[in-house]
Amino acid sequence: MSKFSLYPVTLDGSDTEAKREEIRAYFHNTFDIFEKIFEVLKSDEVFYKKSEPTRHPMVFYFGHTATFFINKLILMKIIKERINPEFESIFAVGVDEMEWDDINGTHYSWPKVDEVREYRKKVRERVDELITSLPLTLPITQDSPMWTVLMGIEHERIHIETSLVLHRQMPLEDLKEVREFNICTHTSAAPKNEMIDINGGSVVLGKDKSHNLYGWDNEYGEFSESIDKFKVSKYLVSNAEFMEFVKDGGYEDEEFWDEEGKKFLAISGAKHPIFWVLEGGNYRYRALHKLIDMPLDWPVDVNALEAEAFCRYKSKKDGVVYSLPSEAEYRLIYEYAGLRDIPDFHESRANLNFYHYFSSCPVDEFGFNGIYDVVGNVWQWSRTPIFGFDGFEVHPAYDDFSTPTFDNKHALILGSSWASSGNMIMKHSRYAFRKHFPQNAGFRYVISSGDEKIENDIYESDELVSQYCEFQYGDEKFGVKNFAIECAKVASKFAKNHTKALDLGCATGRATFELARSFDEVEGIDFSARFIGVGVKLKNDGYVAFASKTEGDLAEKKKVSIEELGCVAVKERVSFWQGDACNLKPNFNSYDLIMATNLIDRLYNPRLFLDSVDERLNSEGFLILTSPYTWQESSTKKELWLGGYKDESGKEVKTIDTLKEILGKKFELVHLQDLEFVIKETARKYQHSIAEVSVWRKK
Amino acid sequence: MSKFSLYPVTLDGSDTEAKREEIRAYFHNTFDIFEKIFEVLKSDEVFYKKSEPTRHPMVFYFGHTATFFINKLILMKIIKERINPEFESIFAVGVDEMEWDDINGTHYSWPKVDEVREYRKKVRERVDELITSLPLTLPITQDSPMWTVLMGIEHERIHIETSLVLHRQMPLEDLKEVREFNICTHTSAAPKNEMIDINGGSVVLGKDKSHNLYGWDNEYGEFSESIDKFKVSKYLVSNAEFMEFVKDGGYEDEEFWDEEGKKFLAISGAKHPIFWVLEGGNYRYRALHKLIDMPLDWPVDVNALEAEAFCRYKSKKDGVVYSLPSEAEYRLIYEYAGLRDIPDFHESRANLNFYHYFSSCPVDEFGFNGIYDVVGNVWQWSRTPIFGFDGFEVHPAYDDFSTPTFDNKHALILGSSWASSGNMIMKHSRYAFRKHFPQNAGFRYVISSGDEKIENDIYESDELVSQYCEFQYGDEKFGVKNFAIECAKVASKFAKNHTKALDLGCATGRATFELARSFDEVEGIDFSARFIGVGVKLKNDGYVAFASKTEGDLAEKKKVSIEELGCVAVKERVSFWQGDACNLKPNFNSYDLIMATNLIDRLYNPRLFLDSVDERLNSEGFLILTSPYTWQESSTKKELWLGGYKDESGKEVKTIDTLKEILGKKFELVHLQDLEFVIKETARKYQHSIAEVSVWRKK
Repeated sequence: MSKFSLYPVTLDGSDTEAKREEIRAYFHNTFDIFEKIFEVLKSDEVFYKKSEPTRHPMVFYFGHTATFFINKLILMKIIKERINPEFESIFAVGVDEMEWDDINGTHYSWPKVDEVREYRKKVRERVDELITSLPLTLPITQDSPMWTVLMGIEHERIHIETSLVLHRQMPLEDLKEVREFNICTHTSAAPKNEMIDINGGSVVLGKDKSHNLYGWDNEYGEFSESIDKFKVSKYLVSNAEFMEFVKDGGYEDEEFWDEEGKKFLAISGAKHPIFWVLEGGNYRYRALHKLIDMPLDWPVDVNALEAEAFCRYKSKKDGVVYSLPSEAEYRLIYEYAGLRDIPDFHESRANLNFYHYFSSCPVDEFGFNGIYDVVGNVWQWSRTPIFGFDGFEVHPAYDDFSTPTFDNKHALILGSSWASSGNMIMKHSRYAFRKHFPQNAGFRYVISSGDEKIENDIYESDELVSQYCEFQYGDEKFGVKNFAIECAKVASKFAKNHTKALDLGCATGRATFELARSFDEVEGIDFSARFIGVGVKLKNDGYVAFASKTEGDLAEKKKVSIEELGCVAVKERVSFWQGDACNLKPNFNSYDLIMATNLIDRLYNPRLFLDSVDERLNSEGFLILTSPYTWQESSTKKELWLGGYKDESGKEVKTIDTLKEILGKKFELVHLQDLEFVIKETARKYQHSIAEVSVWRKK
Repeated sequence: MSKFSLYPVTLDGSDTEAKREEIRAYFHNTFDIFEKIFEVLKSDEVFYKKSEPTRHPMVFYFGHTATFFINKLILMKIIKERINPEFESIFAVGVDEMEWDDINGTHYSWPKVDEVREYRKKVRERVDELITSLPLTLPITQDSPMWTVLMGIEHERIHIETSLVLHRQMPLEDLKEVREFNICTHTSAAPKNEMIDINGGSVVLGKDKSHNLYGWDNEYGEFSESIDKFKVSKYLVSNAEFMEFVKDGGYEDEEFWDEEGKKFLAISGAKHPIFWVLEGGNYRYRALHKLIDMPLDWPVDVNALEAEAFCRYKSKKDGVVYSLPSEAEYRLIYEYAGLRDIPDFHESRANLNFYHYFSSCPVDEFGFNGIYDVVGNVWQWSRTPIFGFDGFEVHPAYDDFSTPTFDNKHALILGSSWASSGNMIMKHSRYAFRKHFPQNAGFRYVISSGDEKIENDIYESDELVSQYCEFQYGDEKFGVKNFAIECAKVASKFAKNHTKALDLGCATGRATFELARSFDEVEGIDFSARFIGVGVKLKNDGYVAFASKTEGDLAEKKKVSIEELGCVAVKERVSFWQGDACNLKPNFNSYDLIMATNLIDRLYNPRLFLDSVDERLNSEGFLILTSPYTWQESSTKKELWLGGYKDESGKEVKTIDTLKEILGKKFELVHLQDLEFVIKETARKYQHSIAEVSVWRKK
């Protein structure tokens, strides 16, 4: 690695072959850096340790960024063949603490690290081939197959940043020096912070689809806000500045902490920032892989709850209200600083992209027009919960990248850190984390009159999820009964044993709850975390709100509570998980019932599911399928349809006959019936379908 | 014009600015040639004459190719403003003799030619601007806005070819010499024709969407055929060779003519080819703008019926069966000739693209591997009726370019002529005309064992039209009555006078027939000739066949007759026309009833229709609207929706309220009701909607 980290490639240009070479270099550089940072783990044994109990062991992340490429390429039908189906199920889900991301490692036997290394090599070769051979026109747009490759690269860049946090949390004895990872070596007294005036103005956030840099879904669209003048701290809060708060007993004084903050203190037992280490009455500082004397002029690393507590403490002390900057205020700070977006911005001007250090550095080292570290050094927590701009649309390859975080619980982090690269150092990027989550993040404060954003219920802005909420929790129409309830009734009637059931393709989870009336335990699995979130919210928060379309863009707001559903008593029986029905994790097994409602004609390869579903059922287990058999090429390539075509001899092939052929060896078909369902599009337009319900008893 | 006609531009390349310049040059060249060929008309008065009664006057075509650009750009929402709404309605429809193309010139007062010249100038400037400014990536694909510009250019190229036929049909005293239009000056004795052996083989017709030349919808997809060896005539049939047929009384002998041929003879009174002129017992030859002595070695210009009659005559004489070549046989002839597609093919090698002459030339002048005029000189009639290849899809900008000709009545013409340029000289282009239609076309004959293609019913391959046939003529579902019948009942109940009704947005025409039960005259108008064709076929052929989808690609074939509908007695009361509800021709007026079912939420600008609809109604006339108000951006830009959004003050705007506001000045709302309708997608999936029916009486 001569130059440690390359800048991201632009989407435009005139020479496709040159662009392929740029992408190839950027891809290998990303893969290289990712593997390099795992060299800090002392031995292969360390890969099976966790840096904290709520996260996966290291080996998961090591496999995850490679499987991500394959899973997304399969999903987008760019490639047909998996490289290692088992790896691609167990390494599949790696999101920030979400209830449905199964982090219980005892559920799997993790593979050998060398096997994962071998696997990574194969993925690297496959992606390299695709970079050479995929159709490519410039500019690369969101529907280009190359976009999925760029998505894989940027996803890996995120994990470079977050893995470095995890590594930094590991015990020092598990780590070793890596020559290239140069920790900044200079420090002196911290400068005294002061406030800078920023003029108000109109801010337009969001970027256009024609922008020439890759973006995640949450970056596109438009959002305007008018901001009054405000003041902002010249420097990030240094370890020295934060020390006053710690020494004044800030972590012990409840008045500085809100409910979420108090919960964090109770669970973590924190008395000081996570990377401070108390040794002999003095605080030392944990860098990536070593302990050093406290660098008082470096930024403090804290989570959002700690940053907010500091603001309350300082407000009380100074008699002025300090808060974290909002997303729109930060844009005015960015403009005040005269910053420009990459590639016009040169990385030498800030502590980012691994250009200077593998650590933070003094808060007065990189200034822009008199204000310091507007980008780089550490991320800066904002008070703005992430939300979708007007015109927000998910990308089909990753429809749950952002939407599960639009829950008012995920705060945006601004700027970037020493460990940021790729999309993260772009002007328009937007990342958000739970407020208790450790990151390479600190903060600066503002004095502003800005109000907090009004909280929105997340599903009101997600049309497809809202449509499913209406389908599963809304009103009946044309005299057709609630489909989820009716399916659960059929299932409960036929099932022999009622210990454990699986609702596969559970969508917003209604049938999962309904099955729990007669099963001791019900797991709901869906491919998309967008949908799962509804069931989780009902279980945890006791309600879900959504918008039911009436005419054009107009909608009626609706709210359903767990009490109304009569499911309070059974809610602890249900759990929701993210999973791919065509490549389910091995731990999903031992069911008395597997119900797949309106799933088989939406799978990219339904045979993969049907061929082995019997193995997940107990003896005397039942499989229940429902489907209107509406095959469509956008979900399933025509050669993988189970019916709805003529075979080579010209004979019509019907889905039910193919089901009998595939399932007949291992199941007996015991019941077949039609069941209507109605999905509302508007108050005057409905999809009215007739599913075929087939009930199969395992032989 | 230094070089008379430029080659078409390729869709690919690496430099977008250079491509814009290529397109610009090609566009102006096309516009120039088109205007140049009208210089042959002696004076502006001649523009108001017709070359034959079934066609429009010349001024129509002169305006038509320019309005085509604007109408398609509006339809595709690439531009918002019309240049001249009146011109863009009266010059809108210019297809080959179709019943719904209103060619009765007394219906309009045509504008001055100078006004049309001025209009053409404005269109030229507007398109030139767009060529500079439209988003452009290479290769240009079918969804690129530039595709619509290329479509306009290629459409004009077609009219260059067909207008030259019309001009050649005009009386000589209406024409003048144009210096650049050089008629070939050499001729000698015709060579004796002979037969060449062509090896059989497998032929794959159709081109891929990635092909680097513009194509019309009918060129894409794939069609394979296995062809036995056959023989083909070395030369096109010359005037000399055809003379034997004429002199032997071929035009008088019914045995050589089929039913369609006999009808042609009866109507036209033809005794010889159209461009032969009998003077003093001798045949002379009509070139574009002069009469010359019969060039015996030039190809004869005939229609397909005359060509077929000649084949029957020659078969009888020689005792061998001659026929016209099929499309697939022609491909083997093309390959035998060693031809290559443009731009690799050089235009100097054949009589096309105006490179040599503004006329035909001897049949033995341009040879390819021993066979002559495989491309160029005159088109060659084939025995193959045009049809859609597997994978056929209409282009949204011109959904009725081909489908109305997939009726087994339109025969393909092969090769190209001296007047062909642009797409017409490409290998993959496919044009078809009615068999009695004059073109710059002749023929060559084959001796082959090939069977005729099996005839298919056209609507069985058109999914959307089939879906509408099922909706209007198929079975009822969920107990919901036939919507077209119910709407017609409401209309008949409210209307006061029953002389003339308009069914606007008539689709496949069921309501048009139903209204005819109580109205003396009913006009059905739809934007797309694809749909209108169903009503026309029912009226003329007494039946229509379509395919009703069951599962996936599988469908049930259905056939409905005019007898079953009980409409035999009223069918003469209905007529169908192509038209744009937002820019209707002035002659559509004086109605007692205008009914627009499920139309307003599919218009690109519904206010344009509503603002002036009262002017087309008689006093005491009624307007009936039905709609589920399912606004969608693909049909109507959001700023033109009539409802389904919030206004600037945040108030919800509903469609019915906007209708009351717009129509309230001129109409009284006398009735409002809901009416359900069901559209079948598959046997298990339906769209189930609830239209609002509003009945408005003109004040």
